Amino acid sequence: MRSDDALPVELPDTVREALLAPLIDHHCHGVRRDDLARGRFEMLLTQAGTPAPPGTTHFDTPAGAAVRRWCAPVLDLDPHVPPAVYLARRAELGAAEVNRRLLGAAGITTFLVDGGPGGPDLLSAEEMGHAGGASAGEIVTIEQVELDVARTAASGVSYISTLTQQLVSRAARAAGLTSSAAYRQGLGRDPARPSRGSVIAAATRRLAGPAERLTDPVLLRHLLWVAADVARERNRPLRFHIGYGDSAPDPHGGDPSLMIGFLRAVQPIGVPVILLHCYPFHRQAAYLAGVLPHVYVDVGLALSCTAVGSAAVMGELLELVPFHKQLFGSGGHGVAETCHLGALYYRRSLARALSLRLAADEWSVPDAARVAHMIGSGNARRVYRL
Amino acid sequence: MRSDDALPVELPDTVREALLAPLIDHHCHGVRRDDLARGRFEMLLTQAGTPAPPGTTHFDTPAGAAVRRWCAPVLDLDPHVPPAVYLARRAELGAAEVNRRLLGAAGITTFLVDGGPGGPDLLSAEEMGHAGGASAGEIVTIEQVELDVARTAASGVSYISTLTQQLVSRAARAAGLTSSAAYRQGLGRDPARPSRGSVIAAATRRLAGPAERLTDPVLLRHLLWVAADVARERNRPLRFHIGYGDSAPDPHGGDPSLMIGFLRAVQPIGVPVILLHCYPFHRQAAYLAGVLPHVYVDVGLALSCTAVGSAAVMGELLELVPFHKQLFGSGGHGVAETCHLGALYYRRSLARALSLRLAADEWSVPDAARVAHMIGSGNARRVYRL
Amino acid sequence: MRSDDALPVELPDTVREALLAPLIDHHCHGVRRDDLARGRFEMLLTQAGTPAPPGTTHFDTPAGAAVRRWCAPVLDLDPHVPPAVYLARRAELGAAEVNRRLLGAAGITTFLVDGGPGGPDLLSAEEMGHAGGASAGEIVTIEQVELDVARTAASGVSYISTLTQQLVSRAARAAGLTSSAAYRQGLGRDPARPSRGSVIAAATRRLAGPAERLTDPVLLRHLLWVAADVARERNRPLRFHIGYGDSAPDPHGGDPSLMIGFLRAVQPIGVPVILLHCYPFHRQAAYLAGVLPHVYVDVGLALSCTAVGSAAVMGELLELVPFHKQLFGSGGHGVAETCHLGALYYRRSLARALSLRLAADEWSVPDAARVAHMIGSGNARRVYRL
Repeated sequence: MRSDDALPVELPDTVREALLAPLIDHHCHGVRRDDLARGRFEMLLTQAGTPAPPGTTHFDTPAGAAVRRWCAPVLDLDPHVPPAVYLARRAELGAAEVNRRLLGAAGITTFLVDGGPGGPDLLSAEEMGHAGGASAGEIVTIEQVELDVARTAASGVSYISTLTQQLVSRAARAAGLTSSAAYRQGLGRDPARPSRGSVIAAATRRLAGPAERLTDPVLLRHLLWVAADVARERNRPLRFHIGYGDSAPDPHGGDPSLMIGFLRAVQPIGVPVILLHCYPFHRQAAYLAGVLPHVYVDVGLALSCTAVGSAAVMGELLELVPFHKQLFGSGGHGVAETCHLGALYYRRSLARALSLRLAADEWSVPDAARVAHMIGSGNARRVYRL
Repeated sequence: MRSDDALPVELPDTVREALLAPLIDHHCHGVRRDDLARGRFEMLLTQAGTPAPPGTTHFDTPAGAAVRRWCAPVLDLDPHVPPAVYLARRAELGAAEVNRRLLGAAGITTFLVDGGPGGPDLLSAEEMGHAGGASAGEIVTIEQVELDVARTAASGVSYISTLTQQLVSRAARAAGLTSSAAYRQGLGRDPARPSRGSVIAAATRRLAGPAERLTDPVLLRHLLWVAADVARERNRPLRFHIGYGDSAPDPHGGDPSLMIGFLRAVQPIGVPVILLHCYPFHRQAAYLAGVLPHVYVDVGLALSCTAVGSAAVMGELLELVPFHKQLFGSGGHGVAETCHLGALYYRRSLARALSLRLAADEWSVPDAARVAHMIGSGNARRVYRL
Repeated sequence: MRSDDALPVELPDTVREALLAPLIDHHCHGVRRDDLARGRFEMLLTQAGTPAPPGTTHFDTPAGAAVRRWCAPVLDLDPHVPPAVYLARRAELGAAEVNRRLLGAAGITTFLVDGGPGGPDLLSAEEMGHAGGASAGEIVTIEQVELDVARTAASGVSYISTLTQQLVSRAARAAGLTSSAAYRQGLGRDPARPSRGSVIAAATRRLAGPAERLTDPVLLRHLLWVAADVARERNRPLRFHIGYGDSAPDPHGGDPSLMIGFLRAVQPIGVPVILLHCYPFHRQAAYLAGVLPHVYVDVGLALSCTAVGSAAVMGELLELVPFHKQLFGSGGHGVAETCHLGALYYRRSLARALSLRLAADEWSVPDAARVAHMIGSGNARRVYRL
C-alpha cells in the first residue's frame, strides 16, 4: 500500500492505520509468470470464458475500469489510460516486474495460495510470497489430489487408502484444504459420510473410465469427509468455493444455504469451515457464519470483480456476519491485478462501512479500528494458527 | 422514545413527529424475566445456537455493537461500554428493572406477543405490556396448539375435532394466529386443503409415536387451513415466520416466494396473511405484498440483527412494498434489548429512507409523514382491527 | 426530456448530456388508447392483479408516488397532487393527449414494442412511435404466434411447419423475438432441442384440446429452438421475460440462473439473448451477461416499479454487468406513465451511479459519458443492428 490516498473517506488515525496495516490474504491463487497477449489478459481479468464480442472489450467492466484507474499508476502510467496503453506498458515492464510491483503494492504480509491444476505457468506459493515481499503458505486443493489418485490407483480399495495418504501427506505442509467443486453436486440432499462399500464400488467405476474431473456424488462426499478428518487432525480449516467465484458452475447451485446439511453434519468434528467468494449469496453466507460456530466467510473475488460496487457487497456482508467470522481474501488468480484490486477494494469498501458507522454515531473509534484489524489479519491468524 | 436524537438525519417536524409517534409492535415474543448469565444472554441476543468460539464473543456482531451503543445509556451507562460492564450493570439493576427501562423507552403503545413454548421464564403478553407501559394482545402460535392436541387426543378423529376446538377457543381472545414452522415443509409442492381421510390417517400415525414438533406435511397443511378458517371467522390475520427469523430452519426453504401456491389458494378465504422477518428474502416478500391483496410484510428481527445495516434492508423492502402493506414488528424475543433495538432501528432506517426521498425531491413532506404513520401503527390498526 | 432537472445530482456537462441524449427503449409494450377508470388505471400502474384492499390505493406504492411527482407536471399539474386530481386531469386531457405528452417527454428516439395479445385497446408499435415523436419497431412475441398456430393447425406435422413459417414471416418485419413464458417451465432440467417425433406427439395432444396458453414443456422447448434459429437467420436477438416483470409467474422460477443450461446450449448458434426485467435476480443476470458472450440484460419494469429505489437496483446491476451488455428498456406497458417513468428513473439511477464513481475518483469523465451513451442507445444499435 503506497499511500492512504487509496481510502475514499476521511477516518480517524487509528482506523486509517488499521485499514492500511498489512493484510493476510488467506485466499488467492498463483498468477501467470509469463507475458500475456491482450485476449488472454482480458479473460483472466474477468470471469468470462470467451473473448468479448466483436467491437467490445472485457475492459468495459467494473474490473477493467478498476485496472485502468488503480493499477496503471503502479506501472507509472496516468490513471484511466486506454487498455492498449496499459497492456503495452505491461509488456514493456515484463510479467516478473509487473507481478513484483502489483503484489508488492497490495500491502499484504502473507499469501495463502491455493494449489491446483495451473501448472508451471503460475507462480507457486513461495514465488507469490517472494514477488510480493511477503511470507506465503500453501493450500491443498482436494479435487486435484483426488484426480492424481484416480489416475494412478490400481483398485477401489487402494483408491481409498491412497487418497487418505495423499491428503495427509499434502496437508502436512499446508495451511489448509480447499474444495473447489463440492457445492456443484447438491450437498443438501445427502450430506452423510458414505459407507466404505459404496465408496469402493464408486471408485471401481471411476477407475474403469478416463480420469476426468470428479463428478460422482459418493466419491465427492467421501473426499469431503476425509478432507474434514485430515483438516481436524492438522488443526487446519476446510474451505469451499461458493457462489460465482468459479468460471463455470451451475450458478443456482452455488448458494451456501444449500450446504446446511453438510455444515451441520461436520460441525461435531470441530474443523473450521470457510466459505469463499459467496457472491451473490454473501448474505446467506453471513447468516451461516452467524448461526454455526465453525463457519467463516470472505467475499473474495467479488471485491475485484465488482470494484466500485464492492462497497455495497461489503455492506451487505456486514449486515449479519460476526466480526470474528469474516476474513480478507482477494480471491486473486491469473493476473496480479486481481490480487492488487482485491486488497484495494477490501480496504476501500471497509473504509466506507466504518466511516458510515462512525458518522452515524453507531460505533466507537476503537471498535472500528479493532474490527478492521480482526478482519484484515487477526481472524486469519487465529483460524489458521499462523 | 426518550428523545429524537435517535434519528440519524434532519427531518421536517411533521415527519420527525410521525417517526417518533408511539408504535404498534405487531410482532414480538416474551422476554426473559430472570437474570441471565453472559453465555445465555449472548445466545439470546443473536440467532446463534451455540456459544461463540473460544476467544470470541457474540457481542462482536452488529446486534452486540448496537446493545453497547444504544441500550447502555438506557441503563445509565456510557455508550460503547465493554460487554462485561454492560452485563454487570444489567445484573445490578435486575431483569425486571432492565425490562421496564428498555421496553418503556422503545416508544411502543401496543405489544402483540406470540405465545409459544417459552414457559414461565418468559413474560406473558400482559406482563410485556405492563413492563413497557403499553397495552398488549396475544397471538396464538398454532404449532403450539397442535402439539398440545397431539399430546392428548385419543384418536385421529378426535385429533381433528379437538384441534379445531382449541384453535377456535384460543383465537377467541387473541389478536391473530402465527405459524412458526409451515414454510419448512415446502408449501409450494401441494398447497391444497388435505382430505379428511388423509388427515385422520396421518393423525393416527402421529398419535402412535412420541408427540414431538410437527413435521408431517399433511397435518401441517391441515393445521394451516384450519387456522385460516379460524382467522377468517375472527377477522384476524394469519402470520408466518419467514426467512432467517428462526434459529434452526432450512435457510434455503425460507423464501416466501415458495409459498405462492398456498398464498393463492388461501386468497379467496379473505384472511390477511402477514409474512414476518423475511430477511434476506424481503424483496420477494415485498413483491408478494404488491401482487396479492391479502399479503402483508414486516422485516421484524432483521432490524435489530442487522442494526446499522437495517437502513439497506429497509431500503430494499421499500423498493416494491405498497405503503399500506408494511407493518412494524420488532420480532423481539428473549431479551428486551431486541425489542428496544427493533423499534430504534425501525425509526432510524425509515428516517433515512424518508430523508433520501425528501432530499431527492421525490416525495412531499405530508406524504412522508403519512407513510410513517401508516407503517408505524395505522396499518396494524386496520389489519388487526385494534 | 424537457429539462435536466430530472437528474438528481450535479454532473460534468458531457456526462449530463450523455444521460439526457435520446434513448432507444428496446423493450416496451403498447399502452392503452382509451380513457381509463381509476380501478383499471391503478392495476395497470402496478403489477397487482386485483384492486387495492378497501381503504387503500395502489397509488400508495413507489410507482404511485412517482406518478404524482413526475407525471403530474407533464399534465400541467403541481407535483404530488392527490390521485383524484391526477386522474381527473388525465380524463380531461384524454388518453391520446396524455400518451402524446408522456411518451414525448420521455426523451426516447426509438420504441421497440412487444406484440402480444393486447388487442385493439393498445397502441401498435407504429402508434407508439407516432405518439412519442419517435421511430418504432416491432418485436414478435413467440408464444402469441404459437397460440395462433395451435388454433389453426390441422395436425402435429402441419403444426411444426406452420409454426416455423409463421415465425419466419413475422420475424421478417420485426426487430427481434420475445418469449414471455419460457422460464416458467424450468429450462434448467432439459434444455436440449426436442426430437421431431416428440414434438409431433406433443403437438397432436395440444391440438386435441382447447388452444390455451402453452404449458407443454416439449412444445415450449421446440418453440424456443425454432425462435433461436429464426433469430439467427435474421440477425435479431431473442429475448426472455425474467423475474418479476410479469404479473402472474412462479416467482421462484424466474431466476435466470436456472436458464444456464439453455443459455449454454444456444450459445453456439450465435444469437444474442436478452434477459428482460430480471428483478430481483438482476445480479444473477449481470453474472450471466459477464460470463456468456451472447447474453445481454436490462432491468426494465424494475425502474418504474421501484421508482426512487431504482438507484439501488441500478447499482447492483452495475456491480458485475459489462458495460457493453446492458440495455435501456422501460418495460413500459398499459399506461404511458410506465414508459415515462422508466426513462426518467433510468436516467436518475444511472446519474447517481456515475456521480458516485466520479466523486470517488474511480472513473474518468469521458468514460462516464461513454458508458451512458452505450447503455442508453449504443448497445441497442449494435445488438439490433438499427
